[in-house]
Order: sequence, then structure tokens, then C-alpha cells
Amino acid sequence: MGESAILHHRVALIKSPFSDKKRNEEIVMSIFWSQRVRNSQPYVAGEQPRDKKYIKLNTNENPYPPSAKALAAIRQATDGDLKLYPDPEGTVLKEALAAYYRLEPGNIFIGNGSDEVLAFSFMAFFNPGDKVFFPDITYSFYVVYANIFGVDCQQVPLDDEYTVDLEKMKGLPGGIILANPNAPTGRGLTVSGIKEVLRANPQRIVIVDEAYVDFGGETAAALVVDHDNLLVVQTFSKSRSLAGLRVGFALGHPALVQALDRIKNSINSYTLDRLALAGSVAALADEEYFRECCRKVVSTRERVAAQLQDLGFVVLPSRTNFLFIAHPSIAGQMLFQALKERGILVRHFARPRIENFLRVTIGSDEDMVAFMRQLEIVVTDMA
Amino acid sequence: MGESAILHHRVALIKSPFSDKKRNEEIVMSIFWSQRVRNSQPYVAGEQPRDKKYIKLNTNENPYPPSAKALAAIRQATDGDLKLYPDPEGTVLKEALAAYYRLEPGNIFIGNGSDEVLAFSFMAFFNPGDKVFFPDITYSFYVVYANIFGVDCQQVPLDDEYTVDLEKMKGLPGGIILANPNAPTGRGLTVSGIKEVLRANPQRIVIVDEAYVDFGGETAAALVVDHDNLLVVQTFSKSRSLAGLRVGFALGHPALVQALDRIKNSINSYTLDRLALAGSVAALADEEYFRECCRKVVSTRERVAAQLQDLGFVVLPSRTNFLFIAHPSIAGQMLFQALKERGILVRHFARPRIENFLRVTIGSDEDMVAFMRQLEIVVTDMA
Repeated sequence: MGESAILHHRVALIKSPFSDKKRNEEIVMSIFWSQRVRNSQPYVAGEQPRDKKYIKLNTNENPYPPSAKALAAIRQATDGDLKLYPDPEGTVLKEALAAYYRLEPGNIFIGNGSDEVLAFSFMAFFNPGDKVFFPDITYSFYVVYANIFGVDCQQVPLDDEYTVDLEKMKGLPGGIILANPNAPTGRGLTVSGIKEVLRANPQRIVIVDEAYVDFGGETAAALVVDHDNLLVVQTFSKSRSLAGLRVGFALGHPALVQALDRIKNSINSYTLDRLALAGSVAALADEEYFRECCRKVVSTRERVAAQLQDLGFVVLPSRTNFLFIAHPSIAGQMLFQALKERGILVRHFARPRIENFLRVTIGSDEDMVAFMRQLEIVVTDMA
Repeated sequence: MGESAILHHRVALIKSPFSDKKRNEEIVMSIFWSQRVRNSQPYVAGEQPRDKKYIKLNTNENPYPPSAKALAAIRQATDGDLKLYPDPEGTVLKEALAAYYRLEPGNIFIGNGSDEVLAFSFMAFFNPGDKVFFPDITYSFYVVYANIFGVDCQQVPLDDEYTVDLEKMKGLPGGIILANPNAPTGRGLTVSGIKEVLRANPQRIVIVDEAYVDFGGETAAALVVDHDNLLVVQTFSKSRSLAGLRVGFALGHPALVQALDRIKNSINSYTLDRLALAGSVAALADEEYFRECCRKVVSTRERVAAQLQDLGFVVLPSRTNFLFIAHPSIAGQMLFQALKERGILVRHFARPRIENFLRVTIGSDEDMVAFMRQLEIVVTDMA
């Protein structure tokens, strides 16, 4: 639309504001939206139903509550000091994470969930037009970041077993992102595999997204000391049962952490509030409870995986808190819908190669009994 | 540095990692930092001292604690449900804000403090190379956003009284940001002045940053209904005593809010945690306490302003929770330093035109008595 055409519309608008709501919105968009907004294809988070009680196996939340010590620390921090800004550096949390991973505080970046950490990584390490390589089937937020920051996605196909072919990840002309274990497949890479990728791309940033690593994956955290092209990203949302608190972090060479800090301090000095800082420090200290929750999730996962196979499902081997499953003769969308009608929410991705899969979060033993019961009925009805 | 020189460095590095820490960091930066990081000039937040008890009048925090009802709501939300993601839409908070400002939920965007809302606004409404106009003396984060997003800052000089000349804000070839009341000057514009700017720039976004408006400014919130080029940005950090909780919001035409939502949902689906959502809704509902705190701050401000004038200071008229003051014969930096040595933290900006000013947050009556006592000693010593 030319300048004069826009002006013409505006005059009409000023005369009768909101007389034609639909048209008005389109015009306002055409005048004010940046190219970045136009190019964006925002991530659609899994449903958070407010109206009905579902058994919620759709967003990979932990079925067990956060550490009681974390809740106590939050309650203790809920006082008049909330009038004060948080520590913009999150010093106490950085020191705790450094001690936990045997690194220095200068190796630690903290953010409002690992999604924010990943977004800042795109801003810190990629210029518009740069290439970034990741599997064709992986966390769907990577494409979203690439779109908004003008980075050129190069999707590397997983093999027929939905496994990352490491040979395809070597000597690449761009940055690399590997979710390990991968989502939504659940498959894990070994640390020695990650090391191969790091060594084969010394001039390229390699971001290893370890959101699910605590459920049986191998963490690359210790590689940070010797590999300055490695950024390991983790979160408190899954294994520490704190999705509602918004805490994520990255481990890397101090120069990479400085880049992330420069981005953060150009957007928002205080991304973690006082309660998130207090709660995450206490959660990290409660190692025993953390291990117990992870152990229970893994044990439930293995039991349910076997039951699903007995029911005829293809079940990819999982090192996460979810299972990626497909029925040989019933479409994923139909299973998803039938389960939803029966009060069970799982995640279905209408994307090539995986449209017949469902991603099922591991809930409590009780949740999973209910899930299996409903699934058996659905499969019997449909098969 | 050429590709081969970098490679040469890298070979040396791989042989003896961290043998020369300084050199190593520079090389890592040179390989991995994006242009955006190189261009960045991060915001430096006011000091949050951890080691010593200062009287803290440097970051415009409220001297009064948050509403007891907000604290109670946070404690109540501190339960096992923290394992679940927050509502990504923040529906309850949006509905509460819409009711409060007599707008629709579609007019409301919420974010992790108003700084994040402003950063997302730069992403949503400006393309790289676009011009953005704001006063030469204003919130120093605007320049930071412009640097990181490649937007061309056009700084419009305040007049000799540190007032915005509205005539200079008309018919501009770019977006406009006005802090109202302005920081760090404390001066306010009228709503009719804002309306003039909106009407004189119908094709341009006008962002009115009302972080301090509740302490005596005039809000443009009601103008949102009739002006689709207006975005009003506010925060819970100052007048609602919740700097530690990270809640900010914007009011605007639904098409502007949609643009902000697209940016947010391309970066982080859940920028506000469950506790911030619960606490801010409760704080907003406690209107009586809010008004009482604002009234007390304003009353203290007026008393201290008079005392400062009696002591010989230039005191700009303030509609905020701070005073912007200068002594006719003592340099701002010296006053800042002398007060700090006496346990009083204020803010000094080493910037042209205002290097002799101090920005002094209005603390409790007790804090301000201590401040005035120390200031009198310092001035007597130095004058």
C-alpha cells in the first residue's frame, strides 16, 4: 500500500473510529507491524486448559511437585523485600550452578526458562542470513527463533529410525543445535558423539539443548571446560518440577556467557524475579528429592513403554520424561482426538514424518494407568 | 582476522587450552559474537549492594512493602502446581487490567517488567534503519534498545528548563517514545499534550512510557480507545512496590498487542511465572493500599523538595517518586561519592547536560530525614 493510500484510509478511520473493526485491524497492522512481526511464525505452546480437569500429558511437566524446600524458600522470600529489584546478576544462583556442575560462575548464564536462553543465543551467536543446522524433527521452537531473527534454517533429516546421523553434523558452514535427548523423539546422543560434533566444527557454535537430560540422557556439561564452541542449555522446568517458576540456564565458555549477558542487559536487566531466584537455589540444593523424582519418572516410563508395545504401538526408546509412540493402523490425529474426548491430553504434531505419532508425557503411576485404560478402549474401538 | 589466522590461533588453543586466558577470550569473542553483540551497549542498572546496608535511594523502588494481599496471594500460589507451566496468555491478569483501565483484554499485553515490554516494542514496531525520536535526556534504556535492534536514535533536545518541546515532536519521520513523567527529570506532560503528538504523527507509533505516572502524572491510558498509534507502557515495579516480581504491561490497539504477542511467542511463551501472575492480580485489586502508598510518597517528595530548595539546590518539579536535583557549586559526582561514603546511595549520570544532577528516590520519611541530615553535612563541608 502506498503512502497516500494509507493516508486515505487513515482519514476515514479518524472520522469513524472502529466503525469497521476488521478493516481497521488490517490497516493498523499494515502501518505499524515491523518486518520481523510479519515474518514471525510464533510457537504454539501445548494447551493449558482452564475450564476442565484433564489428565495432562501434553507439555512434559513433571508429575511430582517441586521440592518442599524450594516451596519453603519461596514462601520465605515472599516478604516486603519484593519492593526491591532482584539481583540483576543472580549471583547466588550462578554460584550454586557453578558448584553443581564443577564450573566457574563465569561459565553460567541464567534466564527466564530455557526458551529465553535459546532466543538470546540466536541473538548472541547468529547474524541475519547465517545458517543454523538442526534435525528436521526436533524442538519446533528452533524454527521460530530462526524466523524472527532472520537466520537460515538448514534442517538435517533424521534417519529412518529417527536417529541423528552424526556424520551429517560435521564440517558444517553454520551453527548447530542438537536437543539431547531429542524432542519429540526422546532419543539420546552420547557425550562422545557430542564431542565428535564439537571437534568437527571448531569454528561453529554448537548448542546442546539438554531440557530432558536428567531422565537418562548424557550431559555434555563437563565438556564446557575444554570446548569453547559448546553451549549447554538446561532448565528447571522438567526434572526439577518448576515449569511454573521460569528458570533456565546455559553453561559455556566465559566469552559466550558474556555475549548472552550483553543481549540480556540490552533487553531486560532482571529476567528472574526474587522468588524464582530463591526457589531455584533451594531446588538445586535438594539433590535427594530431585534424584528420587527422576528415578520414579524413568521407572514409570519403562513400564508404560512395555505396555504400549504389548498393545501394538511403535515406541521409540526414550531418555526423557515422555514417550513418542505410533499405532501401525490408527492415525495420530484420531488417537489424539479420541483421547482428548476421554479426558486425556497428549501432544500431536501435524508435521511430515511424525503425523502418526503422539508425544505422551510420563505422569504419575495413577495418571498412566488411566491413560493406558483409555488408550486400550480407543484402540479396540478404532482398530 | 582472516580465516587462516583464526585457524592458527585455534590450533594453538586446542593444544593448550586456557594457557593464556586473556588471549583466548578475545579469540572466542572474535569467532562467535554476532554483530548485534558487538554493537550492543548494555544498560547498567543501579547498584544492588549485597555487602553493606545502604539507605538505597538509587533505583526508584517504593519505600513501602507490597500489598499484604499480594503477598498472601503469592504464598497461596506457592504449592505443588508450580510443577505446571503458567497460563501463557496471563488471561486473569489481562482481564483485571482491562477492567481497571476500562479497556478490553485484547488491548492488554503483559511482560516481564516494562523493560521487556519496551524491548519487544522495538522488535514489533521498528525495522533496522528506522528512526526513533525521543528526548536527549530520558530513560537511558531507549538508546540500548536502539543499538541492539539497529534502530536509528534521533535525540530531540529538551529545552533549558528540561522540558519536552512538543512542537519538536510533530510530523516526525519515525516512531516516538516519551517517558511521561520523564526520567530522570521527573517532569510530566499533560494528556492533551500527548494527544497533540498522537494527532500530529498518525502514521507513527507513539510509545508513552508511564513507569512513574501513578505519583502525580497524567495517564494516556484512556486515549487508547481512539488512537491506534498509541502504546502506553506501565509497570508494577514502582507504584505497586513489586520491583522484585517483574511485571509490566502495555495498553494499545488490538493490532499492536497482537504484534507484541507474536514477538513474545517467538522468544518465550511464558514470560510471567505463576507467582508473578498471582501477585500482580492481587496487587491490582488492592486499590486502597496502592493509593495510600502513592499519597505518602508524594507527600514526602513535596516536603523534601522544599527542604532541598532551602539548602540551595535546584529542584526540578517532580511528578514521580524521585527528585532530580543539582547544587549550584558542587559537582554531581562529588556529591554522589560523598553521600555513598556516608551510607546513602543515589543515582548520578555522567552524561552531558545532567552531570551535575543527582536523581534521588523518595524513600520513607525516616530515610529522607537521614538523607537530608547527611546531605547538609556534605554541602557544609564542600561549599
